[in-house]
Amino acid sequence: MSPSLSLGDVMAARGRIEGSVRRTPVAEVDPAALGVAGGPDPFWLKLELLQHSGSFKARGAFNRLLSARESGHLTSTGVVAASGGNAGLAVAYAAGVVGVPAEIHVPTTAPAVKVARLAALGARVVQEGTEYAHAQESALASAAASGALFCHAYDQPEICAGQGTLGLELAEQVPDVDTVVLAVGGGGLMAGVATALAGRARVVGVEPETIPTLHAALAAGEPVDVDVSGIAADSLGARRLGSIAFEAATANDVPSVLVSEAAIIEARERLWRECRLVVEHGCAAAVAALVEGAYRPDPGERVAVVLCGANTDPRDLG
Amino acid sequence: MSPSLSLGDVMAARGRIEGSVRRTPVAEVDPAALGVAGGPDPFWLKLELLQHSGSFKARGAFNRLLSARESGHLTSTGVVAASGGNAGLAVAYAAGVVGVPAEIHVPTTAPAVKVARLAALGARVVQEGTEYAHAQESALASAAASGALFCHAYDQPEICAGQGTLGLELAEQVPDVDTVVLAVGGGGLMAGVATALAGRARVVGVEPETIPTLHAALAAGEPVDVDVSGIAADSLGARRLGSIAFEAATANDVPSVLVSEAAIIEARERLWRECRLVVEHGCAAAVAALVEGAYRPDPGERVAVVLCGANTDPRDLG
Repeated sequence: MSPSLSLGDVMAARGRIEGSVRRTPVAEVDPAALGVAGGPDPFWLKLELLQHSGSFKARGAFNRLLSARESGHLTSTGVVAASGGNAGLAVAYAAGVVGVPAEIHVPTTAPAVKVARLAALGARVVQEGTEYAHAQESALASAAASGALFCHAYDQPEICAGQGTLGLELAEQVPDVDTVVLAVGGGGLMAGVATALAGRARVVGVEPETIPTLHAALAAGEPVDVDVSGIAADSLGARRLGSIAFEAATANDVPSVLVSEAAIIEARERLWRECRLVVEHGCAAAVAALVEGAYRPDPGERVAVVLCGANTDPRDLG
Repeated sequence: MSPSLSLGDVMAARGRIEGSVRRTPVAEVDPAALGVAGGPDPFWLKLELLQHSGSFKARGAFNRLLSARESGHLTSTGVVAASGGNAGLAVAYAAGVVGVPAEIHVPTTAPAVKVARLAALGARVVQEGTEYAHAQESALASAAASGALFCHAYDQPEICAGQGTLGLELAEQVPDVDTVVLAVGGGGLMAGVATALAGRARVVGVEPETIPTLHAALAAGEPVDVDVSGIAADSLGARRLGSIAFEAATANDVPSVLVSEAAIIEARERLWRECRLVVEHGCAAAVAALVEGAYRPDPGERVAVVLCGANTDPRDLG
C-alpha cells in the first residue's frame, strides 16, 4: 500500500499555497536564556506564530481549499469545518481570501470570544450539541447535505501536506538541522513535517501528559482515544491521533515525549520574559520538552523548535 | 571636523558585540494585513523585540561596556546609568553578563515594576529626585565620585555605534532595502542605522506628535528641548535629540514624520491581531507611520520597519 502522504504531496502543496501564506522567520537563541540545560549550542525557533490566522493551520487550510478548487470540488457552496480553535480560524481565514463561504460548527459550550473571532473572519458559526463530537457530526451532515467541502482539523492528506510546507521552509532556513521539535495534538503538523524531512532530519513529537494521543497510539499499535484535559487542550485537544499521523510517525520513527503542565506554563512565561514572544500553551509545550529535559539533545545536535501558534490571551503575562 | 560616528565605528562595534547580542530575524509581511494603504509590495519587519533585555538598547550597552573594557576604563567599580526604561534594563543586563556591578538611577516616582525589573537583573537601584533630570544628575555625580563608567541612554558614540549594528544586520537580511523606518526618541538608533547604511538605504525617523525631538531639532537647526507626553513616553521620552543624532540626521537627510496617539495604539493592536507580535507603544510608532500614511512609500519601494522593543504590558491586548 502506498503511503497516504508523500514528499511530492508536500512539494505540490508548497507551490499551491505560495503567496497565500507567510514564509515565517527563524530566530537563533541561546539555550541558557530559555533555561534549557546542557550544551552551549544555540537552537532555532521557527516563528510560525506569525502565520496568518495565528497558527500553522493556515497552511493546511489553504492547501485543502486550493486543491479542491483545482479539481473542481470547491463550489460557491463553500467549506464546512468543526473547530472553535486554530483549525476553525484558519479555514475561516482561508475561505475569506479564496472567496467562498465558511460554515464553522462549534458546540454551544464554545466561549463567546471564539465564536466572535470566527464571525469577525466572516464565517457563519453553527452552535450544535455540548461537545466537539456533536459539532463534528453536525458539520459532516451539513457538508453532505449541501455539497460543501469538509475540512478536517488534521486527518486529511491535503491538510497534512499543507502543514508539511513548514518543514520544507525550515530546512532551507536551517539547512543542517538535525532535529525538529514540535507539539502534537491530532498530528497533522507532525505528519507533514516528518514526511517533508524524511531522511534529512528527525522529528520529535511533544505532548502534554494530559493529552498523550501519539504516546497512546504508539503504545497500542494504532490510534486510540485518550482523555483530554489540561491547560493546552484548546489547541492540542484532539481525542485521538489521526490515521495519517500514525502512519507518518511509525514510518519515520517519531517518538512522543511527555511534558507536565507546570513545564508548559514555565516555558510560555520564559518565552515572554526572555524573547518577548507570546505563544499559546500548546505551542509552549514544544519548548517545555527542552526546559524540563523530557528531550535532551546530544552535544552538537542542531535543534529547531516550532513555535506553532499564538491564539492565546496575553493578559496573564506581564 | 570629523563626524562623531563613522561606518568604521559601527563595524568595529559589530565585531565587539558579536556573540553577546542576538542576530534578530526579519519577517516579510503583506501591507494589507497591517492596514497599510497603497502598494501590493511586501515589506519587512526587523524583529528586534527579540533582542536581549527586550529592545535594541542591548547592542549599545554591550558596545559601551566592551569598548571600555578594551581601553581599561571598565573596572570592578562597574557602570552607572540613569533610566528606568529600555536603556537601564539593557545596561543592567549587559553588566550582569560582562560581570561588573550596575548602578541605575531613577526618580522616586518610577513605577515599582520598573525598579523590580532592574533589581531582578542584579542592578543596584538608586531613587533620587522626582524627575529624570534629577536622576541623571545623581548618576553623573555618582560616576564622577566612584570612577564607574557612565552610560548615556543615547548620546555617546559607543552607544550609537552599537545600535547601528542593527543596520548592518538588516542590510544582509534584506540586501536591496531602500528605506528603513524607525522610531526616534533620543536618536541613538537612528544615528547608528543612518551611519551604517549611508549611501545604501534611506532612514525615516518616526516620532509621536507629543515628543517631536527630531522634528524640533531639524526646525531649529539644533537640538532643542520639547515637551514630553503621550502613550509612548516610556520608551521615546527623551527631552531633546542627542548631538550625535542631530549630526547623523543632517548628514544623511533623515526626515521626521509625526504620528498621532490614535495611530500608535491602532498599529500596536494590529501587530498583535495580524502578526501575534506584542510591542511597546514607542515601537508601534514606526508601523503607525505606514498605517496612518504619515510616510507613504513609492510604488516598488522596499521598506523595512524596525520593531525595536517590547518592554510593555501585554495585558491591554487580547
